[in-house]
Amino acid sequence: MDTALSLQLVEASDILSKDIRDIVKILKKQAITHKNTIMMGRTHGVHAEPTTFGLKLAIWVEEMKRNQHRLEEARKAIAVGKISGAVGTYATVTPEVEKIACAKLRLQPAPISSQIIQRDRHAQFVTTLAIIASSLEKFATEIRSLQKTETLEVEEPFEEGQTGSSAMPHKRNPELCERICGLSRLVRGHAVTAMENVALWHERDISHSSNERITLPDSCILLNYLFHLFKYIMKDLRVYPENMKRNLGVTKGLVFSQRVMIALIDKGLSRQQAYEIVQRNAMKAWQGRISFLDLLSKDAELKKHLSKKELEGIFDYNFFLRHVDEIFQRLKLG
Amino acid sequence: MDTALSLQLVEASDILSKDIRDIVKILKKQAITHKNTIMMGRTHGVHAEPTTFGLKLAIWVEEMKRNQHRLEEARKAIAVGKISGAVGTYATVTPEVEKIACAKLRLQPAPISSQIIQRDRHAQFVTTLAIIASSLEKFATEIRSLQKTETLEVEEPFEEGQTGSSAMPHKRNPELCERICGLSRLVRGHAVTAMENVALWHERDISHSSNERITLPDSCILLNYLFHLFKYIMKDLRVYPENMKRNLGVTKGLVFSQRVMIALIDKGLSRQQAYEIVQRNAMKAWQGRISFLDLLSKDAELKKHLSKKELEGIFDYNFFLRHVDEIFQRLKLG
Amino acid sequence: MDTALSLQLVEASDILSKDIRDIVKILKKQAITHKNTIMMGRTHGVHAEPTTFGLKLAIWVEEMKRNQHRLEEARKAIAVGKISGAVGTYATVTPEVEKIACAKLRLQPAPISSQIIQRDRHAQFVTTLAIIASSLEKFATEIRSLQKTETLEVEEPFEEGQTGSSAMPHKRNPELCERICGLSRLVRGHAVTAMENVALWHERDISHSSNERITLPDSCILLNYLFHLFKYIMKDLRVYPENMKRNLGVTKGLVFSQRVMIALIDKGLSRQQAYEIVQRNAMKAWQGRISFLDLLSKDAELKKHLSKKELEGIFDYNFFLRHVDEIFQRLKLG
Amino acid sequence: MDTALSLQLVEASDILSKDIRDIVKILKKQAITHKNTIMMGRTHGVHAEPTTFGLKLAIWVEEMKRNQHRLEEARKAIAVGKISGAVGTYATVTPEVEKIACAKLRLQPAPISSQIIQRDRHAQFVTTLAIIASSLEKFATEIRSLQKTETLEVEEPFEEGQTGSSAMPHKRNPELCERICGLSRLVRGHAVTAMENVALWHERDISHSSNERITLPDSCILLNYLFHLFKYIMKDLRVYPENMKRNLGVTKGLVFSQRVMIALIDKGLSRQQAYEIVQRNAMKAWQGRISFLDLLSKDAELKKHLSKKELEGIFDYNFFLRHVDEIFQRLKLG
Repeated sequence: MDTALSLQLVEASDILSKDIRDIVKILKKQAITHKNTIMMGRTHGVHAEPTTFGLKLAIWVEEMKRNQHRLEEARKAIAVGKISGAVGTYATVTPEVEKIACAKLRLQPAPISSQIIQRDRHAQFVTTLAIIASSLEKFATEIRSLQKTETLEVEEPFEEGQTGSSAMPHKRNPELCERICGLSRLVRGHAVTAMENVALWHERDISHSSNERITLPDSCILLNYLFHLFKYIMKDLRVYPENMKRNLGVTKGLVFSQRVMIALIDKGLSRQQAYEIVQRNAMKAWQGRISFLDLLSKDAELKKHLSKKELEGIFDYNFFLRHVDEIFQRLKLG
Repeated sequence: MDTALSLQLVEASDILSKDIRDIVKILKKQAITHKNTIMMGRTHGVHAEPTTFGLKLAIWVEEMKRNQHRLEEARKAIAVGKISGAVGTYATVTPEVEKIACAKLRLQPAPISSQIIQRDRHAQFVTTLAIIASSLEKFATEIRSLQKTETLEVEEPFEEGQTGSSAMPHKRNPELCERICGLSRLVRGHAVTAMENVALWHERDISHSSNERITLPDSCILLNYLFHLFKYIMKDLRVYPENMKRNLGVTKGLVFSQRVMIALIDKGLSRQQAYEIVQRNAMKAWQGRISFLDLLSKDAELKKHLSKKELEGIFDYNFFLRHVDEIFQRLKLG
Repeated sequence: MDTALSLQLVEASDILSKDIRDIVKILKKQAITHKNTIMMGRTHGVHAEPTTFGLKLAIWVEEMKRNQHRLEEARKAIAVGKISGAVGTYATVTPEVEKIACAKLRLQPAPISSQIIQRDRHAQFVTTLAIIASSLEKFATEIRSLQKTETLEVEEPFEEGQTGSSAMPHKRNPELCERICGLSRLVRGHAVTAMENVALWHERDISHSSNERITLPDSCILLNYLFHLFKYIMKDLRVYPENMKRNLGVTKGLVFSQRVMIALIDKGLSRQQAYEIVQRNAMKAWQGRISFLDLLSKDAELKKHLSKKELEGIFDYNFFLRHVDEIFQRLKLG
Repeated sequence: MDTALSLQLVEASDILSKDIRDIVKILKKQAITHKNTIMMGRTHGVHAEPTTFGLKLAIWVEEMKRNQHRLEEARKAIAVGKISGAVGTYATVTPEVEKIACAKLRLQPAPISSQIIQRDRHAQFVTTLAIIASSLEKFATEIRSLQKTETLEVEEPFEEGQTGSSAMPHKRNPELCERICGLSRLVRGHAVTAMENVALWHERDISHSSNERITLPDSCILLNYLFHLFKYIMKDLRVYPENMKRNLGVTKGLVFSQRVMIALIDKGLSRQQAYEIVQRNAMKAWQGRISFLDLLSKDAELKKHLSKKELEGIFDYNFFLRHVDEIFQRLKLG
């Protein structure tokens, strides 16, 4: 019966909502811990500009807060009961009965219903879970990417000796994160099913019921399980700041090329002149995997305009992070 | 650029929101007009108990009001801008600039961003449109069902002489409603795509962009078009109360069988005795397509307990509709 | 392990394939039985031209034969094994071992593999099941439509006394057909999940595995269950030729309007003259629910050109069915 | 009209089929070129065992050959015409006409049809395109992964000076591959829509038509565009064997740990003894990023059992690739 189903979904919502609050708490703590843990920011998978691991996590905090809000909205959408008879006319029981019963069950009486509560409500519920699962997939994909052997900036938690053989200590696989990604796809599939359930015939057809027996409990249980996995992962995530620093250096300081150019222009060079100096050294640095700073330090023309100290002052990752505190304050983090 | 995209989606939301308000207005008007237009309520496609066409429409009113609320939430989710640089650190412009620019554009600055605004927001937007499209599919499916030749309780509007040949005046096809159903499926497909866009890599990968150029404008334009069709249909929907009444009679009064039984029990018969009287006449009525009332009127045993007047009093469709006013008042309709 | 999974899917395919053969047999038998069971053909839900119930079923026979072929293709796609080591290089065992093992298991060795068998194969498998489930949904939707109280041309089987109360003998609901429709949506959702599994990382990531543990067995089991339901329904489907005939008459003979016009033209009237005669009587017939034949019989102008016998000869449903035998022969049916 | 649609889909199939043949040709050529281009094989994103870039591409060759076969099947499924009248009974034209017309159009006449060709055929067509697009997404995801700055084993083609600024020569983004991924999601969305089109009402409802006007041409055009992008990418893919070798060394030779252990056991040590030697050096190598071979060379206990030459003989990547030729021969590659 639809009212009983609503009760179950409300209860599931409350459990999932508690999970999200826990996750937000864990993510916040980690974000604060790693507020200044500098690492390379990547766009298209390619190095862009430095950021911090804390900033990355703060984005997740905010995303989960949005998901919290979505879940509350979805909960409201399905927290309705109905006892309005075979076609919604209260032919056998009065609206008064529905009102009293729903009050006892802490549900709102559906303002109007047919034999059932309308399925746009349940579609909102399942698509909401699917969006939340997609967020988790994003986080898990990030960890999987950062755990790639060449990158290895974080690892999902592992028990010592967890790997099949400690003779291959590098072979720690982000299997929990992969599991999150895989199951997220399943919840998205259920969202398709739930949306197809909206267009029932007349005062109800029962076609929705057969799939809801699977999609509704399974979506809730799956998300609860994904939350459980994700909490476990985030609580004890292994973070390797030294590897982050090593990776920052992979492009040999080229992230500072624009700043060098601006400094030269500030010193009076034309844009074209500044660009040529920077460009020839940048190409050399990249092709030869040589320190951009070293190359510039030896560039005769550049030396006329920038002192060694000035040049070194430019090569400061903290320049990119000077607004981190402000962002964290804005988010009331830390 | 993401901020420009947000502006477009906000604008689209406002247009769609206006459409929904118009639709709610049209549906309300029709609901009030047909508050007491009695018709058969159907579950599983089979006759259940009487309802009114106005009640059916009042359910749609409420569903569109929920959709209005969902759209407002989706609008809020995407009404954010960002000018936070290549990876979200404000490396080149300050948060202050973002704040001022967003204020001018009437957007909220995203509390935190990477190179982009996070795609859970856009996923919420498109799934919301897909749920709304699914509601429209439900309404359109209802009209298509009621327009079936055997039923013919409503017809979508048609110009006189619209049918290919007026030599086949019965051949008026609910093509606009069918179009709504078909395009609804397309928006649902886009919802799948939008949810897959959430899990982007690191500070952004651009994979979402190629499909968003299609799914985002197309979902908005499609929904706007569906609204346009639906408004046109609902404004001039042809309603045939006489056919509704004819169809009410198809089951020969069997919807009253339970009431007759209760009346007999009230008169002192055992449940078993009452059931037997009702059942034997019900079977005869159904198999022979004979008036249930006529059969009962001639049933010697029944006549001992119920007068003709009492019996006729039971066969009153209005019994089923005695709470319609209350429902409408509750919804502030009429 | 992937090879074990292939074995299970092959076994499932064989069971499902047997189900399809059974269904084709049942459908063929019913198609032959109802080859000449005349009924109204409907387009857009509106009466079009007469057809037979056997023709409808013959369409299903052919569709299931296509599904049989699709399933065979899907079976071939997943009937492969692999024992090629951690990344597909046979680092520990030789290709010879794989060949022997696969031969014993009656699988083809994958011509090349990574750690796994590529997931395009499994995506083909699940989308194939989803298409088959969609066909079943079509058939079930048809039965549900034909079982609507106003139409009542067929009913899914029911035990006597199956309905909640035999005091409402008309209330036989096509719940099995509705169940088929609902579960079909679930299999379609799994198809989305399966397609998302194709793009795994490098020599394998394990994200597919978590959802496959659900989608693969469940899709197979669901389809097997749908087949079971559908066989039960089709074996004992209640068919009501008399209701089909009654419904044929709902449009009062208007399906013959074009034939009358052509007959008048053959008699020497201009197209315009013929059209006017037909059209005025058609409108009257439709609006007044009067026999078109009766009206025409009394039309003074028409009587000048067509004898009563000629006119009656035109009103012959069999005209529409004169190619049924040929169609059945073509399909080797009966 | 359905027959015209079939003609268009057949034509599109032929174009797409030609594309696949071209792609197979390009992939084969690259596979042969890189048959022995050694690189690390990765599972879970983590280093597993060496493979070659050619093997990776050979997997793609086979996957595209499977896709070629799927497309041929899909083409057969939709290469049918029908001229069978309003409900499929040939009421106005004879089957003979259909036969002749279809022959002229090089289509098979549908063995039986309603007003339309059944939509399971079109669902197969679009899901086939969606599976092919998913394969392309897999390939594109692989290139994106291998182009990540830390890995940089391949890059999609770029014109010199293509990057925004040559002052950032490392910033070459795999945007075409990202585009392929994004558009692949769109085709998958259309597959959902196409499957929902199967369950039309009675002898046809026209709901499918509105979305097919978008999904059918767009799926074909999208796939053709994806093929175009992929051909361009694969023809001039930049491959960096030296980076592949560098990355092979990231785990300091730990991929050989199992071989060392086996060699020690062959020399008479117990499994436990061998394991301890390997394990303590493996941990040291991994934690200190020290050459595993160097550590073993200095291990006093190991030296008792394995000569330096024997040890060095074990550290040979070619061991993992000794079956590559056989695999290529099996595939008739090269």
